[in-house]
Amino acid sequence: MFHPAGLGNGSGTGGATARLFAKNDYSVALFARGADHVNKVADEINAAGGHAAPFPVPSYSDAHIASAWEAIHTTFPKPEYIIRVALFNVAHGVWKPFLDVTPQDVQDCLQTSVAAAFSFARGAILAFKDNDIEQPNGKRGALIFTGATASTRGNVVTSAFAAGKFGTRALSQSLAKEFGKENIHVAHAIIDGGILVDRQRERNSAEWANNEDVRLSPEGIASAYQYLVNQDRSAWTWELDLRPAHEKW
Amino acid sequence: MFHPAGLGNGSGTGGATARLFAKNDYSVALFARGADHVNKVADEINAAGGHAAPFPVPSYSDAHIASAWEAIHTTFPKPEYIIRVALFNVAHGVWKPFLDVTPQDVQDCLQTSVAAAFSFARGAILAFKDNDIEQPNGKRGALIFTGATASTRGNVVTSAFAAGKFGTRALSQSLAKEFGKENIHVAHAIIDGGILVDRQRERNSAEWANNEDVRLSPEGIASAYQYLVNQDRSAWTWELDLRPAHEKW
Amino acid sequence: MFHPAGLGNGSGTGGATARLFAKNDYSVALFARGADHVNKVADEINAAGGHAAPFPVPSYSDAHIASAWEAIHTTFPKPEYIIRVALFNVAHGVWKPFLDVTPQDVQDCLQTSVAAAFSFARGAILAFKDNDIEQPNGKRGALIFTGATASTRGNVVTSAFAAGKFGTRALSQSLAKEFGKENIHVAHAIIDGGILVDRQRERNSAEWANNEDVRLSPEGIASAYQYLVNQDRSAWTWELDLRPAHEKW
Amino acid sequence: MFHPAGLGNGSGTGGATARLFAKNDYSVALFARGADHVNKVADEINAAGGHAAPFPVPSYSDAHIASAWEAIHTTFPKPEYIIRVALFNVAHGVWKPFLDVTPQDVQDCLQTSVAAAFSFARGAILAFKDNDIEQPNGKRGALIFTGATASTRGNVVTSAFAAGKFGTRALSQSLAKEFGKENIHVAHAIIDGGILVDRQRERNSAEWANNEDVRLSPEGIASAYQYLVNQDRSAWTWELDLRPAHEKW
Repeated sequence: MFHPAGLGNGSGTGGATARLFAKNDYSVALFARGADHVNKVADEINAAGGHAAPFPVPSYSDAHIASAWEAIHTTFPKPEYIIRVALFNVAHGVWKPFLDVTPQDVQDCLQTSVAAAFSFARGAILAFKDNDIEQPNGKRGALIFTGATASTRGNVVTSAFAAGKFGTRALSQSLAKEFGKENIHVAHAIIDGGILVDRQRERNSAEWANNEDVRLSPEGIASAYQYLVNQDRSAWTWELDLRPAHEKW
Repeated sequence: MFHPAGLGNGSGTGGATARLFAKNDYSVALFARGADHVNKVADEINAAGGHAAPFPVPSYSDAHIASAWEAIHTTFPKPEYIIRVALFNVAHGVWKPFLDVTPQDVQDCLQTSVAAAFSFARGAILAFKDNDIEQPNGKRGALIFTGATASTRGNVVTSAFAAGKFGTRALSQSLAKEFGKENIHVAHAIIDGGILVDRQRERNSAEWANNEDVRLSPEGIASAYQYLVNQDRSAWTWELDLRPAHEKW
Repeated sequence: MFHPAGLGNGSGTGGATARLFAKNDYSVALFARGADHVNKVADEINAAGGHAAPFPVPSYSDAHIASAWEAIHTTFPKPEYIIRVALFNVAHGVWKPFLDVTPQDVQDCLQTSVAAAFSFARGAILAFKDNDIEQPNGKRGALIFTGATASTRGNVVTSAFAAGKFGTRALSQSLAKEFGKENIHVAHAIIDGGILVDRQRERNSAEWANNEDVRLSPEGIASAYQYLVNQDRSAWTWELDLRPAHEKW
Repeated sequence: MFHPAGLGNGSGTGGATARLFAKNDYSVALFARGADHVNKVADEINAAGGHAAPFPVPSYSDAHIASAWEAIHTTFPKPEYIIRVALFNVAHGVWKPFLDVTPQDVQDCLQTSVAAAFSFARGAILAFKDNDIEQPNGKRGALIFTGATASTRGNVVTSAFAAGKFGTRALSQSLAKEFGKENIHVAHAIIDGGILVDRQRERNSAEWANNEDVRLSPEGIASAYQYLVNQDRSAWTWELDLRPAHEKW
């Protein structure tokens, strides 16, 4: 079973990953802020013959995330369902000169990119710890975090966004080191480029959208996540970068 | 004038930096949680012929930090006083296995290491922007952040601490890039080893305390900060590491 | 068609990658120092129904590597064969305290890990440039470099080895940036742990060899290389790390 | 006593560092390819009341570097002279698209930036090992390497240059870790910007040369090296970056 957190409107990485895992016979728990989006993606997956259930949360507070995990365990009880994969795919984006960044912007970035990542990871690790070790990949579970260019570089308009994304990355590295020895695989993907989601489609030219060399497709990222989940215990990746062929970096 | 934030009990980096700058004829605003500590260090500096004033804050919330900056401007008004140096030297330390980390631990690390850093930096940058460019170092002001091993590496018991310290580092890099072109120098020092402060003195052997090769002295760090402040505009450092001669790394 | 360089005795990463690609219907050019090893692996692959040809070189000098590329083009002429994948998997390992490192050790590390990498990459890039763009992965070709822990960290006995491996990594990053826009994918894998090859098998316990959680298998690495080659143009990885589940890092 | 290697024509970092240390009462051994430059800088320093001696080498081969070290020991014998500081400031610069890089370019970069660094470091470490520990900085000696932007980033025209500079950096990190415990301080400075040397002065506008905010001055770098040498044993820096205030990075 598979939990993407942070679906956006379903046109992005979270939605694509949910669809790919559903196609590969995972039941999928959809977990995000806003009932509309999770319902839409769940309906789509179920209509296509997959199996998905929506778990909307009113906010990414620790209490709401903990409740969502409880609801997931109730809907997908053991031993019929085993939670094997979790994706943390949420971030609060703020791109502003430093003096325009408000205390609320900072709180939002930290709450969404870091505090929510801790809460979500707690639920995932607790779910995985009880699992047997799956064959052939040698895992109790896989927890993947979506990062960004701002995960390793602070830039002129990214102070708040980068502060959050650096934090997610720190957490993912700590978890990878602490839980690797319990056969829990934690990975972090640095998405270094624009992703073809609805919002970007509106902002950019059709040429940009149609040129696969210059923007990431959600499906390409989802396929990387599938690979990470399948990696066998002898060769696990903590971190990889993903960017379009023609990206300047 | 010089503002260390985060004095601890005055035995550490903040206190040593305050004393060093006071000796070098800076007036010093002492800015930290808890009136006892700031008063003690201010008294000490004043008794030694320096000039210091305490600015205790009840918490590192944005409102309290903003008030402290206002109080500092009132106590040290322009043009008699020019604020040239600011040190952010605060962190909330949590060393726990991940599953023992509470939501409050996460909030404390993020609030102290990141949100307070944003609030403090805002006050510093606003103070510096109005300054003329000082000669010979070519600066309107210098803002220094104290980092740690956990600023670049997440480890098994440092998930929350590292999430905060990574965040401080991201902020410092964004600021260095954004404000360098306005001749505001922002630097980040990675302290990679144990510092000889009262608390460490109690925890460790006298041998450790007396062996300068194995632990950092607050004075050594203060001296690095003095060097950074003096660096001339043609060769500024954003980041340096500092560790004892015999540290294993 | 696929060229692993640096086969060792065929029990390691080069051999495993050759076997995996051969199984996936690539013709394989085996390219290494020492006729015995390349012949052995080629025979093995051919006996198993694959297609491989050996290209032994007397040394990793630029002239010998250039000759090998010529021989490969002759044996696998266009348009029957298209060279799509190249693996640089060679390193000269020296683990010695610095004062025991000889000038010859340094030369060997630089020649094998860096100069040979330039020569090999030149042949690969020239071969790829003429290719059409393959579908669906959007590539003219993929060039992969095998790195190591010492690719990003110099340590007490790795001065010479790390100097070479840092160099390979620099080259791979330059190539990735320069040739991405020509749809040539260049990647670098950091192997962070011991690999189960014959030599390690002899040095370590049977327990180590049998415990998939503590050592890398050549097959796990080969499978990562296969994934990198398949990555579609919208989401390419330059660098990933690979380590066993229980590795301490 | 102080040895800069790699003086260029004396207008750059090596010359400025020699002049600064000479002013601070160090005797200076000038060590570089080409008798004209070392003689010129030595004459200048001696005319200004300092003490310098030239040690030209015909090449940066291991044998020539070893001979130069012998000559230095003869000219500056113990116990009248104690070698305390060594600077490796040499690099071979190649900026070319990858396919224009010749095997000779690669050899030159590796020989000058890496192999020569090993040879030079060997002489320095051997000289330092016999020293007593100096007070108050707690050192037997300090060995500094000049790095560049290309020390941590490979870029489209820097494949060969970066391969060499990455290698120097690897060496410096290995040495810092191995010899810190013997109180030998090894540091690496990343020069991230254009330096105001004669050659750059010719290539760039007078405006560039006169604007201290946009280019590094050799004196600013020399002053960083002086600071590193003075750092006391409780707080040593392995790596710092240096760039002009207005540099875009």
